[in-house]
Amino acid sequence: MTVKIFDTPEVQDFLKTVAGFDQEGGNERAKQIMHRLLSDLFKLIDDFDVTPEEYWSAVSMLNALGGQTQFGLLSPGLGFDHYLDMRQDAIDAEAKRVGGTPRTIEGPLYVAGAPEAEGFARMDDGKDQDGETMWLTGQVRDVDGTPIAGAKVEIWHANSKGGYSFFDPSQSEYNLRRTIVTDAEGRYTARSIIPSGYGVPEGAPTDVVLKSLGRHGERPAHIHYFISAPGHQHLTTQINLAGDPYTFDDFAFATREELVVPAERIEDAGVIAQRELDGPFSEVVFDIELARTDVAELQTRHARPRAKEDEQDQHSQLAGTAKV
Amino acid sequence: MTVKIFDTPEVQDFLKTVAGFDQEGGNERAKQIMHRLLSDLFKLIDDFDVTPEEYWSAVSMLNALGGQTQFGLLSPGLGFDHYLDMRQDAIDAEAKRVGGTPRTIEGPLYVAGAPEAEGFARMDDGKDQDGETMWLTGQVRDVDGTPIAGAKVEIWHANSKGGYSFFDPSQSEYNLRRTIVTDAEGRYTARSIIPSGYGVPEGAPTDVVLKSLGRHGERPAHIHYFISAPGHQHLTTQINLAGDPYTFDDFAFATREELVVPAERIEDAGVIAQRELDGPFSEVVFDIELARTDVAELQTRHARPRAKEDEQDQHSQLAGTAKV
Repeated sequence: MTVKIFDTPEVQDFLKTVAGFDQEGGNERAKQIMHRLLSDLFKLIDDFDVTPEEYWSAVSMLNALGGQTQFGLLSPGLGFDHYLDMRQDAIDAEAKRVGGTPRTIEGPLYVAGAPEAEGFARMDDGKDQDGETMWLTGQVRDVDGTPIAGAKVEIWHANSKGGYSFFDPSQSEYNLRRTIVTDAEGRYTARSIIPSGYGVPEGAPTDVVLKSLGRHGERPAHIHYFISAPGHQHLTTQINLAGDPYTFDDFAFATREELVVPAERIEDAGVIAQRELDGPFSEVVFDIELARTDVAELQTRHARPRAKEDEQDQHSQLAGTAKV
Repeated sequence: MTVKIFDTPEVQDFLKTVAGFDQEGGNERAKQIMHRLLSDLFKLIDDFDVTPEEYWSAVSMLNALGGQTQFGLLSPGLGFDHYLDMRQDAIDAEAKRVGGTPRTIEGPLYVAGAPEAEGFARMDDGKDQDGETMWLTGQVRDVDGTPIAGAKVEIWHANSKGGYSFFDPSQSEYNLRRTIVTDAEGRYTARSIIPSGYGVPEGAPTDVVLKSLGRHGERPAHIHYFISAPGHQHLTTQINLAGDPYTFDDFAFATREELVVPAERIEDAGVIAQRELDGPFSEVVFDIELARTDVAELQTRHARPRAKEDEQDQHSQLAGTAKV
């Protein structure tokens, strides 16, 4: 077929009607963005001669993705999360907010209200027998190297099967999720277990989309962080553990060279005893530098629907009684 | 913010990676379409300085739409269904397949496997006390006026509350859904009830999107048709009943002048008796002209996920025992 109708006055007028240009109410920015979005999509349909069958199969896929709440999972797979980071990096560079540990994507699996501790926390509930013990520690510093005491370090990661508590109902509440406030020297330390990488579930809508592009849905082993402190820019980041086959082939495009961290195996009996552990373990050190800012809105994470975030206060109160 | 990064080599390379251009597997057309789609969306984000908050609120809306299987409802509201019709009209014109009753959108509420009858069917189960009796009839003809016997006329419509059986569980199975095969003179006749228009549910994700554009989600009273006959082009269409406040202000953009049909009130006792009805009723006449085609794929409706379509054979067998 060679029929092209996009540029006809009929279609151009129709786009304005659909976007509500002739309606008094509504939101002006929503109308402008919708008009642009629909124009792009209508033109794509014309240019690629998208058939009704193809169109309705896409609509079905959208219903399936939403039906399993997977748009937040597909989003990093299609590069949106990393693209927003690239834009934010450019915005920071233009505003001369430079230095500091690089940001990377949040992912869809944060849950607000994890138990909070001072300096040290044990993150795992001890039930994951396949998990190698991990000693995760580091120092939060200013860009000039000054330690930041009282910084809030929120950490969340998967278990040895690649599952996250809350989303994986077999795990205890807030397992592998903690908020640690740095000590006088800016240090935080967690005892936990080495996480496993994980893949988008086989056959899930997100997997179907990725496979149609010849791509996989695997992530390397990684650990998520939110770090914040007054007077500093809020940092959303992750570390990838070195040596994972997917470290530099992450379907979610979260890997950054500076965020690849080794896990060092420690078998020295003295060190094991001093840490009060039962046997050999792996140590992961991740120091963090925060950029300075006086802009209040940059000191907190951006708004985004997150599990339990609206109930955070309530859950913080419950945290002391959580199974740990 | 004035930061623009879309045209940088970094972003352009990233788009190729995301679309799987460097991967051997997958589907070449899917990759090309995805690359175009993502390029359009990334550029939109750059041009409108879409914030992370705005982006994540859109992702949330996509999850909500899919969570309620509403992409098929939003789709006509955003003009896609009508746009596909405009394209198909242009494709037909180019191929000189002209004449015949105009097509219009199918909508998302068809259910396959409705009871089939010869010449006449009663469509309503008699339980809708608010529904004015409707006598719906017409002749299916070729473009030269020759009646088509044995044409398959599938009809489905809402009840007096605007609800459709199957999707509205309070209605009996296949209520207001029938397939009628035309008689020797090409005629079909149905006894049913006058449908009501309906609106997208208040506060539903589709309603939220439409309201952001200053638009409503109302449809006028209408009746859906699929009509098919060997040697003729399959027709998907609807009639709108004249006089509804939304006849020419349909949120789904399905109205076409030629498809607006009056409902004529008949109170003549003789006619009422002849039709074996209990009292005054409204008569709706809709004659249909089918274009000719020898192309087999144009003689059937296009593929689209439809309720019960995969089980159609099984349900046709059950149809005889359906509550009518």
